[in-house]
Amino acid sequence: LIGVAGVGLADPLPSWQGASKDRIIEFVEAVSDVGGADYVTPADRIAVFDNDGTLWAEQPVYFQLFFALDRVAKIGKEDPSKLTSDVLKAAAAGDMDGVLAGGKEGLLEILALSHANQSLNEFSADVAAWVSGAKHPTTGLGYDEMTYQPMVELLRYLRDEEFKTYIVSGGGIDFMRVFAEDVYSIPPEQTIGSSLTSSYEVVNGVPTIIKNDALFFNDDKGGKPVAINHHIGKRPIMAVGNSDGDFEMLEYTTAGEGARLGVYIHHTDAEREWAYDREGHIGVLNRGLDEAEDRGWVLVDIKNEWTRIFTGEAE
Amino acid sequence: LIGVAGVGLADPLPSWQGASKDRIIEFVEAVSDVGGADYVTPADRIAVFDNDGTLWAEQPVYFQLFFALDRVAKIGKEDPSKLTSDVLKAAAAGDMDGVLAGGKEGLLEILALSHANQSLNEFSADVAAWVSGAKHPTTGLGYDEMTYQPMVELLRYLRDEEFKTYIVSGGGIDFMRVFAEDVYSIPPEQTIGSSLTSSYEVVNGVPTIIKNDALFFNDDKGGKPVAINHHIGKRPIMAVGNSDGDFEMLEYTTAGEGARLGVYIHHTDAEREWAYDREGHIGVLNRGLDEAEDRGWVLVDIKNEWTRIFTGEAE
Ligand SMILES: [Ca+2]
Ligand SMILES: [Ca+2]
Repeated sequence: LIGVAGVGLADPLPSWQGASKDRIIEFVEAVSDVGGADYVTPADRIAVFDNDGTLWAEQPVYFQLFFALDRVAKIGKEDPSKLTSDVLKAAAAGDMDGVLAGGKEGLLEILALSHANQSLNEFSADVAAWVSGAKHPTTGLGYDEMTYQPMVELLRYLRDEEFKTYIVSGGGIDFMRVFAEDVYSIPPEQTIGSSLTSSYEVVNGVPTIIKNDALFFNDDKGGKPVAINHHIGKRPIMAVGNSDGDFEMLEYTTAGEGARLGVYIHHTDAEREWAYDREGHIGVLNRGLDEAEDRGWVLVDIKNEWTRIFTGEAE
Repeated sequence: LIGVAGVGLADPLPSWQGASKDRIIEFVEAVSDVGGADYVTPADRIAVFDNDGTLWAEQPVYFQLFFALDRVAKIGKEDPSKLTSDVLKAAAAGDMDGVLAGGKEGLLEILALSHANQSLNEFSADVAAWVSGAKHPTTGLGYDEMTYQPMVELLRYLRDEEFKTYIVSGGGIDFMRVFAEDVYSIPPEQTIGSSLTSSYEVVNGVPTIIKNDALFFNDDKGGKPVAINHHIGKRPIMAVGNSDGDFEMLEYTTAGEGARLGVYIHHTDAEREWAYDREGHIGVLNRGLDEAEDRGWVLVDIKNEWTRIFTGEAE
């Protein structure tokens, strides 16, 4: 009995402090309180999380872009004739300015060469090898060590309280599924993202899923509620994001009846991580910052409310 | 202890008899046998089921088409100007020959008027009202009473043995989700089907999912393994279907390593249900019938192996 009481009293969010922590715990306790006014049956305790900038870092560029560049470099090394354009050559050389100069078209070329026209099995093996070996250019950490310790605690806390946790990310669904179960304990069927079209083919007698090079679904902005409905078929009661790309997801989630929680992670810590919001081309947060308070959404101040940042840093 | 033993000894499939029943139980026991050669961890015990002709009946036409015709009739009664073509007029009159004469284009017109350009909430309410009131033209049963009792038993048996059961159907995802939880105990996030595109809009201040009239995904043939990968992200260990539209799903499922089970429901009972396979425009089974034995798939003979058919018929 002492042991059980001990578990109950342990801090479920040891890397958090301040008002955001209090509001999150208040919400979780309210919806879990059988007989309480805000009680929600476990089957409806759905929580959705953005990934880039919410569950792991996203600077100086989305980590999936680092993967794509490394992949293009490897392909170019094996067969330089595959680098058929300036933007692919820039990608292979790790020349980020050259990559960005190619605009959206250039990114799609990079995406096609690095992510498509191969089997899902080959792609997944590539991603797994990359995640286990690649290091972030400024922190020197593995990318899977740049997941946020406070968010991993939050995911675990929610699951302990019978929530079902989902990723709903603009990142690639097949990319994230390679590591989401290991690093977040979120299984593939709860990992939702953007995707290319794919097809089923029997290749040399082997039934195979092939990744094609056309966009199937862009899981961003209004696409997030659409994807939530398509995959889950229920409105979540909690949504967490960090940019205006998550605005509609938070809006849709918190517009439902009963207790709801919208949370924005605000990147305020230039020393331990990165500080950014209204400016730049990654994780822009304008409307969300303007409206969070009026809408009753929690705005997490990383600098003051997270006592630890990355899972991979020394405690 | 007597109670527990009693549960263990009870027949998990009381409406089944014969070789197919034996093979299904053998498979389920083998993958659930901790320490056995064929053991599969519960997280990987994924079973996928076609719906029309597998979990419920599908004659003389798919039940979703009956819904569409009833819906077009209702819309035409309220506003005859919406019946802008011969095929829509035929649909409103319940003239099946006229509907079929319109071909695929005509069906898409019927689909657009009955399923699209409305909110998901409105659509779901329409379906719920229809399911609770409409009767099948020849049996007089409610459509939700024409679910197959042996299959409901099989779904329950699998879940008791820690399988996760999914629907993977050519039918509409939003249509099935209205009743799948009630009639099959399969929640929305495990109900996969064909879909129209949808969009997110704030309508008079209310965040709303709108169903549009373009096809988003056709969950049939090679689309079934693609949808399984997209929604589940794992290869199932068991797949059950009834037509050549399920061939790729069974092929993909049973090509995986370890113990696998492919099952075809063969409609052989013209008296208690309908008998059909190689001919017609619904549930055609040719390649599957030719190859099931060589591929080691179970072929369920409804006439001889199911002692009861519909959940809604008197016992
Ligand atoms: Ca983000
Ligand atoms: Ca079928």
